[in-house]
Amino acid sequence: MEPSRAERRAARRQQRSEIPLAKLPFQELRNPFPPLEILPPEGIEKIHNASLDLLETTGICVMDEEALSLFEKAEARVDHQSQMVWLDRGWLMETVAQAPASFTWRARNPERNVRIGGNNIALAANGGMAYASNLDVGRRRGTLEDYEAFLKLGQMCNVIHINAGELVAIQDVPSSARHLRRLLANFLYTDKAVLEAAHGRIIPQDCLEMAKIVFGDLSGDPIFGGVINVSSPLRYDGRMAGGLISYARAGQVAIVTPFISAGAMGPITVAGALTQQNAEALTGIALTQIVNPGVPVIYGNFTTPTDMKSGAPAFGTPEAAWATLVSAQLARRYNLPFRGSGSLNNSKVPDAQAAWESHWSLWPVMFAHTNFVLHSVGWLEGGLTASYEKWIIDAENLAMFFHFFKGFEISDETLALDMIAEVGPGGHHFGTSHTQARYATEFYQTTLADRLGYETWAAAGSWDTAKRAHAIWKDLLAQYEPPPLDPIFKEALIEFVEKREKELEGKNLYD
Amino acid sequence: MEPSRAERRAARRQQRSEIPLAKLPFQELRNPFPPLEILPPEGIEKIHNASLDLLETTGICVMDEEALSLFEKAEARVDHQSQMVWLDRGWLMETVAQAPASFTWRARNPERNVRIGGNNIALAANGGMAYASNLDVGRRRGTLEDYEAFLKLGQMCNVIHINAGELVAIQDVPSSARHLRRLLANFLYTDKAVLEAAHGRIIPQDCLEMAKIVFGDLSGDPIFGGVINVSSPLRYDGRMAGGLISYARAGQVAIVTPFISAGAMGPITVAGALTQQNAEALTGIALTQIVNPGVPVIYGNFTTPTDMKSGAPAFGTPEAAWATLVSAQLARRYNLPFRGSGSLNNSKVPDAQAAWESHWSLWPVMFAHTNFVLHSVGWLEGGLTASYEKWIIDAENLAMFFHFFKGFEISDETLALDMIAEVGPGGHHFGTSHTQARYATEFYQTTLADRLGYETWAAAGSWDTAKRAHAIWKDLLAQYEPPPLDPIFKEALIEFVEKREKELEGKNLYD
Repeated sequence: MEPSRAERRAARRQQRSEIPLAKLPFQELRNPFPPLEILPPEGIEKIHNASLDLLETTGICVMDEEALSLFEKAEARVDHQSQMVWLDRGWLMETVAQAPASFTWRARNPERNVRIGGNNIALAANGGMAYASNLDVGRRRGTLEDYEAFLKLGQMCNVIHINAGELVAIQDVPSSARHLRRLLANFLYTDKAVLEAAHGRIIPQDCLEMAKIVFGDLSGDPIFGGVINVSSPLRYDGRMAGGLISYARAGQVAIVTPFISAGAMGPITVAGALTQQNAEALTGIALTQIVNPGVPVIYGNFTTPTDMKSGAPAFGTPEAAWATLVSAQLARRYNLPFRGSGSLNNSKVPDAQAAWESHWSLWPVMFAHTNFVLHSVGWLEGGLTASYEKWIIDAENLAMFFHFFKGFEISDETLALDMIAEVGPGGHHFGTSHTQARYATEFYQTTLADRLGYETWAAAGSWDTAKRAHAIWKDLLAQYEPPPLDPIFKEALIEFVEKREKELEGKNLYD
Repeated sequence: MEPSRAERRAARRQQRSEIPLAKLPFQELRNPFPPLEILPPEGIEKIHNASLDLLETTGICVMDEEALSLFEKAEARVDHQSQMVWLDRGWLMETVAQAPASFTWRARNPERNVRIGGNNIALAANGGMAYASNLDVGRRRGTLEDYEAFLKLGQMCNVIHINAGELVAIQDVPSSARHLRRLLANFLYTDKAVLEAAHGRIIPQDCLEMAKIVFGDLSGDPIFGGVINVSSPLRYDGRMAGGLISYARAGQVAIVTPFISAGAMGPITVAGALTQQNAEALTGIALTQIVNPGVPVIYGNFTTPTDMKSGAPAFGTPEAAWATLVSAQLARRYNLPFRGSGSLNNSKVPDAQAAWESHWSLWPVMFAHTNFVLHSVGWLEGGLTASYEKWIIDAENLAMFFHFFKGFEISDETLALDMIAEVGPGGHHFGTSHTQARYATEFYQTTLADRLGYETWAAAGSWDTAKRAHAIWKDLLAQYEPPPLDPIFKEALIEFVEKREKELEGKNLYD
């Protein structure tokens, strides 16, 4: 007799329970220690003041007529011909001060709402990659199948708070339809909070239309966040300005992030690059508050050195660690939530370099009290490639931080003086009642680390980390089950997507 | 015409200057930020008090008659039959308080003396491995050739402050002669401070005899440090007690380190394991002060969870991170220098797991203000194997911390307002005078990270990190030059070693 549907579900649940990463309950990640402040307050004030000087004297270019008009109405000095804006420091500080220090990002399952701010660290999945890679097929252009697979992994592993975003470019779908296919997949495959592209004016509008189907009323806490990348140095293009205005007007979250490869898109000195970053970020943040005073907004950092040999941005470096930590200090100075990045690296394969560079991103991000961590999983190759194996490696390391920040209990029970006395000198604690009562739960349970003896490991095929990670993501995907969604919503979403695909066919979404 | 010796040397120097790791000048590593204290003072007091209760009521076993007599003379309660010692808390605190908070560890080249204490972080090479591995020959028993190769790498790369120690077991030399061959190699191949085995009474004596040849007068600051591992739980064996007494008496440094795999050699709870560790460490530290009040001594930590599936100690875990950070807090409470470990991991190969577990050791060690970091380079497989490729990977990551802790300058020059204004919106900073003046020196120079474009990388053979590290250690060894040593000393050392080898042939060094 065939197993029933319920039996198959129970079997899948049992299998999944053998993968610790899939067992972690959905929960907040908080850094209970004070943030690491590597600059004294005077240093922060110098960067702050220099960036305000820059906005008063040099100004910044905003290549969008609506944005220029908005700045003009807010009494900023604007030159429409050069598209330059100059911002008065007093006005700027008053305007930025209207943004909230923290807010709730809504998920379609309210139990998965995410708090952004304070010492809360919200982890978001990978974003913006062109290629996908895994040990089966190597590196190739991203597809919708890849996108959905990464969504499913993010749904199954609760190290991810905020799923979706442009997990990988879906290059097998026409560019005018990609946001629709992403959004449809987001609502079908995950019930967590989602990121979407805040690019131009059409994509945000479609986001909101589709969210209305699922959420009903869109007023109140935001549902979408999107990254607004400044076209550094000192320039917002129309696509980004349009996205920022659209999101802000609709009460959604702009994550304003200058991308500065120091020595290329900004000064080579970290002090100079951060000055430029701060001026650029504050401009976008101020614009959100002109559009919609009090709307949530996030101060973003993506400043990293340029590798002077290849000309490429160098990720996971000491300079990038400084930039992350100081940017968080700046964001705190303005009482704004802060965005950093989790698993940045330049490696082509999920090897030692991929892991060490990711750690050079991750520890600073954690110690900075980064409220929104993009690219927490899966990054390779300077962000060009989303790797399935790297996804699992990163998820394992994020899970370790959940455990680390919880700390350990100190009580008569855990100090265990009686047990130490009972075992005595030269004895063994393996079989004690104290150990037996705790052996399954006391320590962090690894999914991916190998601790076998050498001979056992060799006999099992001498698998390195990448091979083990490969087996794990395959197991996870085999066990995936979609979260419940009312079939009426599903139908309505599909209908909307089909209609809009036709309407948008061949269109440039950013005109 | 053949190149002259001077020309060959100049050529080697030029080659070496192309490997950034070999260019780093010898310098101190300091963490300028406050140490990360994960327990509040009350938590530290609870562990402190519990460990003193343990030493007053349960006691500790010391399997060495001289040690027992020394404790007895110091008015501790001793039972010679059971070899148990009980220590009064008031006496213990007074005795431990005699040890210095910091000291200088002398090298045979005084420019390479190392300061131990405060926020200084001294990095020591790998230690205690049975196997050596590299991509040429795989994993096999350690040899004298391996030992010398690791010494040479440590001499060439100034991320290593303290070279030598049992870098790898030299299994092609009879065990009665190994310390002699190590010591000879130490004085021939490195002029940095050295670690040696403080095991039993014969090895320390030979250390001192050989040091006399090179240093002359041995009074004053110590020349040797050695790790004293407690045979946890609650037991010092004769070999370790003998080594500790010999080193302390001669003014050398005992690094008193309980090795507790929590759940096996101590309670499974971190609070319990640290209580036991603290009792064990304080006992050895007190013994050094009985023998020689004021002699330098280091409080050591090597507490880590037991993997409940394999029974092996699990390295690079969140629990080990807690243990490191709290142990440093305990050491600071007693005003003692602190020892931790740098690159611990369970991986069999220098892959992602090896790197991430090493980072889970390294960041806590750095943020704990660890004054003496053993196993900073080369660890694999829970310490069974010293890997040449992992050595380079670890050295790269240590070098990044030298850069990170230096921080960056904030001045009108580095804030670069004029330059940002001159480049303007949408411009490029690559060719500016500001960038050109700094491009070779502003950023950390990587030895090992790959930042090539994918196609270039693929065309060059798709080398992963391990393959690149393999090429680098071979280049380094090819360029090695021994530090100057007076030929008279060299002859005397060789004569001593030959004489002692014969005397010790077939002897057990720990009787």
